[in-house]
Amino acid sequence: MRVVVPFAAEQPKTRLDDFFTPAERREFSRAMLDNVLAAIRESGHEPELLTTAPIERDVPTIVDERPLTTAVNAILETDSPVAIVMADLPLATPAALAWLFDAPEDVVLAPGRGGGTNALVARHPDFRVDYHGTSYLDHREGARRVGASVGIVDSFRLGTDIDERADLAEVLVHGEGAARAWLDRVGVRLVRSDGRVGVERTGNG
Amino acid sequence: MRVVVPFAAEQPKTRLDDFFTPAERREFSRAMLDNVLAAIRESGHEPELLTTAPIERDVPTIVDERPLTTAVNAILETDSPVAIVMADLPLATPAALAWLFDAPEDVVLAPGRGGGTNALVARHPDFRVDYHGTSYLDHREGARRVGASVGIVDSFRLGTDIDERADLAEVLVHGEGAARAWLDRVGVRLVRSDGRVGVERTGNG
Repeated sequence: MRVVVPFAAEQPKTRLDDFFTPAERREFSRAMLDNVLAAIRESGHEPELLTTAPIERDVPTIVDERPLTTAVNAILETDSPVAIVMADLPLATPAALAWLFDAPEDVVLAPGRGGGTNALVARHPDFRVDYHGTSYLDHREGARRVGASVGIVDSFRLGTDIDERADLAEVLVHGEGAARAWLDRVGVRLVRSDGRVGVERTGNG
Repeated sequence: MRVVVPFAAEQPKTRLDDFFTPAERREFSRAMLDNVLAAIRESGHEPELLTTAPIERDVPTIVDERPLTTAVNAILETDSPVAIVMADLPLATPAALAWLFDAPEDVVLAPGRGGGTNALVARHPDFRVDYHGTSYLDHREGARRVGASVGIVDSFRLGTDIDERADLAEVLVHGEGAARAWLDRVGVRLVRSDGRVGVERTGNG
């Protein structure tokens, strides 16, 4: 099965712009991507990169500057089965990915917070994606519309996409590998806030 | 195995005070509790309520007005094995709870967002809880300190505790049962915001 990782090479992670410079956001997004690529390889699959602009990574690469939904559907139209795994899932482990990849249904969804779809497997030739809005609900409905069976992967790790400052705490609590190492290096630390734990930046960051 | 659900009967869910009145917060917290109690029963266990003040529920009840950590440790000191499942997990399903209850390790943890521990099983007589700060990391370390094996349940549903306005979207996307019905009744609806989907309040709320 093909495993494709979409990546926004330019202007990544804009909702972290109150915490990181543009250059830092580029570095951090690439560190998260490296986490995801490594976890896919450890799960026994060879990842492919679907990127909006060329980046230097030792992985088969498709450059497609169109919007995410269009670029992913171009792949789904020509091949099946295909897994689509977002690049901002630095908590993804080989075990969590294997759970997704090995589920038997025609369409398998790993929901993200806020109604998103963080990863999916499409084995039905007529299934298409739409990443706008509550894509998880739309994908579930879309799968049923084309007569595909639907599986849901109930994973905290795959459900944790990193978009905002508060999300960085999840990387520090649960993460290993490149994204965690990058946060450590720039001095991002856990801090106890009112309620859930948050992050602050100290030292040489 | 005993399955204990701690519940803050007074002043519940204070971080929702920008969205709900105190009376509404009490209603909503009880609706979430009913979700959790129902899911535990459907998983084949009889829940017990550990509440800071008496409330009307048809379930064996311990009233203990001490802080959460103290009250839970009083139970862990006298009995084992015990499961502790938080009352603000309206996405909890019998399947997700069975995964927790049936894991073989001495201490099994279901992490919540922001470093919390949303549910756990303690089978080791020396394990104690501390719910302050990054309790997930503290519990993992505490289990190792007493020589207990540690299992982690990677569940999006058990990881989703409902504390803040943004969390309500998860109930509307993934929830069924009492909490979802209550949100529908007071007119809380999904709304597409910049990034993840959020909620707004309309109608007769």
